[in-house]
Amino acid sequence: MLNFSFCSPTYFEFGKGAEKEVGALVKRFGTGAPGAGKTLLHYGGGSIKKSGLYDTVVASLRENGVEFVELGGAQPNPVSSLVYEGIELCRKENVDFVLAVGGGSAIDSAKAIAAGAVYDGDFWDFFQGRYVEKALPVGVILTIAAAGSEGSPNSVITNDKTLEKRGCSGEVIRPVFSILNPELTQTLPPEQTAAGAADIMVHVIERYFSNTKEVEITDRICEAVLKTMIYETPRAIENPNNYAARANIMWAGMVAHNNLCGVGREQDWVSHGMAHEPSAFYGATHGAALAVICPAWMKFVSRVNPDKFVQFAVRVWDCQMNFEHPEITAREGIERFELFLKKIGMPSSLKEFGAKEEDIPKFARHIGRVGETEKNFGGYVKLNLNDVEEIYKLAFL
Amino acid sequence: MLNFSFCSPTYFEFGKGAEKEVGALVKRFGTGAPGAGKTLLHYGGGSIKKSGLYDTVVASLRENGVEFVELGGAQPNPVSSLVYEGIELCRKENVDFVLAVGGGSAIDSAKAIAAGAVYDGDFWDFFQGRYVEKALPVGVILTIAAAGSEGSPNSVITNDKTLEKRGCSGEVIRPVFSILNPELTQTLPPEQTAAGAADIMVHVIERYFSNTKEVEITDRICEAVLKTMIYETPRAIENPNNYAARANIMWAGMVAHNNLCGVGREQDWVSHGMAHEPSAFYGATHGAALAVICPAWMKFVSRVNPDKFVQFAVRVWDCQMNFEHPEITAREGIERFELFLKKIGMPSSLKEFGAKEEDIPKFARHIGRVGETEKNFGGYVKLNLNDVEEIYKLAFL
Repeated sequence: MLNFSFCSPTYFEFGKGAEKEVGALVKRFGTGAPGAGKTLLHYGGGSIKKSGLYDTVVASLRENGVEFVELGGAQPNPVSSLVYEGIELCRKENVDFVLAVGGGSAIDSAKAIAAGAVYDGDFWDFFQGRYVEKALPVGVILTIAAAGSEGSPNSVITNDKTLEKRGCSGEVIRPVFSILNPELTQTLPPEQTAAGAADIMVHVIERYFSNTKEVEITDRICEAVLKTMIYETPRAIENPNNYAARANIMWAGMVAHNNLCGVGREQDWVSHGMAHEPSAFYGATHGAALAVICPAWMKFVSRVNPDKFVQFAVRVWDCQMNFEHPEITAREGIERFELFLKKIGMPSSLKEFGAKEEDIPKFARHIGRVGETEKNFGGYVKLNLNDVEEIYKLAFL
Repeated sequence: MLNFSFCSPTYFEFGKGAEKEVGALVKRFGTGAPGAGKTLLHYGGGSIKKSGLYDTVVASLRENGVEFVELGGAQPNPVSSLVYEGIELCRKENVDFVLAVGGGSAIDSAKAIAAGAVYDGDFWDFFQGRYVEKALPVGVILTIAAAGSEGSPNSVITNDKTLEKRGCSGEVIRPVFSILNPELTQTLPPEQTAAGAADIMVHVIERYFSNTKEVEITDRICEAVLKTMIYETPRAIENPNNYAARANIMWAGMVAHNNLCGVGREQDWVSHGMAHEPSAFYGATHGAALAVICPAWMKFVSRVNPDKFVQFAVRVWDCQMNFEHPEITAREGIERFELFLKKIGMPSSLKEFGAKEEDIPKFARHIGRVGETEKNFGGYVKLNLNDVEEIYKLAFL
């Protein structure tokens, strides 16, 4: 096991009606003092107004004397232009706390605003590799189980000028509190539930496939999250009002990405790197893009390094171990994963996003251009740009 | 899933040589200011002096300009008299940070001192049910994987006047940092390694056996920890220098008790309640007492409520499901657990601690006396004092 530091200090308020606590939590975790700054209430489209969540939040903030300004419009694959707008608003309105209400998009956008508001330079620096050292505190009300941003120190933003979709990190952008009410996810349509599930599962998979040996506890926790998702996702899709299924998925989504599943070893993250391109170019839903890219990546790298795939097949997918030909077991695990993704309604080819095979060099060049070649090109199996093109090809089958 | 709050903010520094960071961490998480208070360095017997750990700690504190006073002598089943001594020392020496170096005993003793030092009344109030609202910050260097106190908001102390062994809790006594170097556990003799493993496993079991249904993610994480312990404990006993086994056990011990294994449902804790008596009366090692009491408790309650035991057998112990007679499967799971405990060298009867069957009413009355009947007498199956006596009887077989 490699040496590591782990600190996941976010306060989670989980369960029915938890969003009513938001005003009290902003007061507790924000500066809260009279005459102190305002809170920026940041959200996406109109869904939180339709559902009544907006009214609940506003009422709770007012009851607790929290002054706030608003910025809506965070969209899936959140964009830099809105972040700039948010930063300007924070400065103008003396904002000292950022509250995100929504999914990963609103949260990631809020984190970027929180970091940019107290930074003298261009916030995009953080998405070019600069670590975030200082930010306004961020609070969250989560409305979709997927990104894990509610418990993570990361944010992913798309630069709407260059179409680069990039991540940044910093312990200071980990939410100080996150409110997780599974009821709020019961209105999600099946395709969003499924894309969220794919995202959660790939967050685990990126950490699970590692060449660091004998990290049994981390492996087992990864498998625990994956098995939970395998059981609960079809239940939530079949009956969107299944509270228990929604609750297990929601908490699994947090555990998948606060790095408990990653401690003590090298991680990979190639699938995320590669899935960002179809999102940036065609607006593919993040989870749906992962559902196509990740199995393609698996097929490619399992030929080179099958070991962990055998364990994945046996422990996660209950495949029978083929002791004579373990590579057959490995393949079966990947097939069951693909079958599962299909069953929950995920696409299986990049074609389904309107991509064409001739776009592949464009994707690959785009990844290569941003100078993250070493970092993003794999840990479990080291990949060069040709390998990346091969994987994209497999994602067109 | 029941509503819950979860916040585990402890900063963990994990791995080889991590103890060298202690001075820097005390500065970071203590007040650190020049002229501020001293740190109380609290530990157990002489083992940290023999091993050289004491010298490393002192050197690191001095390098970082941390002034400190010392209190050794924390013993297994730590006692109230030493806590009083520590509290007095803290007040006299203007202590504002408590650093525990040792296992659960030193840590629990340190937590009690940290709470008592800033409390006007008798610290024992906290062990009679008063929640700890205020305490000096506590830091930890862990030397045995067992109690999980390095990540928990709890402390267990034995009143050396009344022989009551009781727990207290409060978020403020959760360590602000914990240093976990698995190498420090490599010198532990097999019986301590095994007793620690039993303690870790029972921390999970007390949370696993719950009547709250459909908490799949929490169940799966519990099973992940248990399966890790089943795999790694015999490896660590066979080869005490197996770093990977020690590392997995050490991190599993933290995960077992920071309440990630318990969120979203009712918990039980009868085995802990009952195991405290043989420790208080005969000085039985906590984990060894649990290794005897917990299977006895299982035999008794599984007759009344076998459901979760079937899952325990199939998922944790890989028993084959008997669909016609699931109670046979349930029994097999308990038998495998007993066999495992025996294999790692744990005792299987209270006799081995020098207890006699005629002591049973004394144990039971002792538990009954302290007015925790409802709280401590079970969640999975509600137990009265007669049931408790029956379980003690089973622990003599």
